[in-house]
Amino acid sequence: MVEAVSEDGYLLRPVGRVASSLTDAASAPRQGDEGAPTAWLVFDSQVERALRDLRVGAELLLLTWLDRARRDVLAVHPRGDETRPETGVFSTRSPHRPNPIGLHRVLAMDGLRVEVADLEALDGTPILDVKPVLGAADER
Amino acid sequence: MVEAVSEDGYLLRPVGRVASSLTDAASAPRQGDEGAPTAWLVFDSQVERALRDLRVGAELLLLTWLDRARRDVLAVHPRGDETRPETGVFSTRSPHRPNPIGLHRVLAMDGLRVEVADLEALDGTPILDVKPVLGAADER
Repeated sequence: MVEAVSEDGYLLRPVGRVASSLTDAASAPRQGDEGAPTAWLVFDSQVERALRDLRVGAELLLLTWLDRARRDVLAVHPRGDETRPETGVFSTRSPHRPNPIGLHRVLAMDGLRVEVADLEALDGTPILDVKPVLGAADER
Repeated sequence: MVEAVSEDGYLLRPVGRVASSLTDAASAPRQGDEGAPTAWLVFDSQVERALRDLRVGAELLLLTWLDRARRDVLAVHPRGDETRPETGVFSTRSPHRPNPIGLHRVLAMDGLRVEVADLEALDGTPILDVKPVLGAADER
């Protein structure tokens, strides 16, 4: 099922949402290991089968749609620090970028409503995908 | 610019395409470190400013849209091996998943047309985003 929405784009359909105490980008930590809270990934019931093998303690890569980011920003001062030179966004982890996909490395802590440690995403952020961290080639 | 396409989705706009000798999913390696070729990332000129600080030798995370994947698959036999139990796709790196976003760790080798080592994406695969690999917190 190759599926193009239009000549120039593809349609992402969120599979869940983040539930977090973080509601304000200005006060959110810039990365998950900088004091981010435990949060919940609340998945739609339609993807229950995709989730069923997640284990407590698994290291996951979480992909989100940063729905409060700007898409027209191509260069930023890293970490909002005006003393640092303006840098192309593809060399930064700025949320503001042409396709604002968030990539978060988290630790799974529970079932269909997945508790995760150290997540800097804001409350209500759409979830796009979850992937396992790849271990050594012989563990795949 | 918060931008919703519809009630239930967001529109990804590719910023470039992969140019690779890999044209057939059946013969492509399953991961980049399993014999994938050097490939090129061919970016649209509109994102030149976002790219300008990429350096030769930089470790990058490349996000692609796996345009030949299926979106209706929620569980797979890992690596196509029928002897392995069917596993929810969020616990696998299968390309077939609700939002088939590819995540590839690559090494940058050149400028606007960025040569990268060990990329398992197929020729023509749309590029969505490029992110730096995060180093220690004090390097951010």
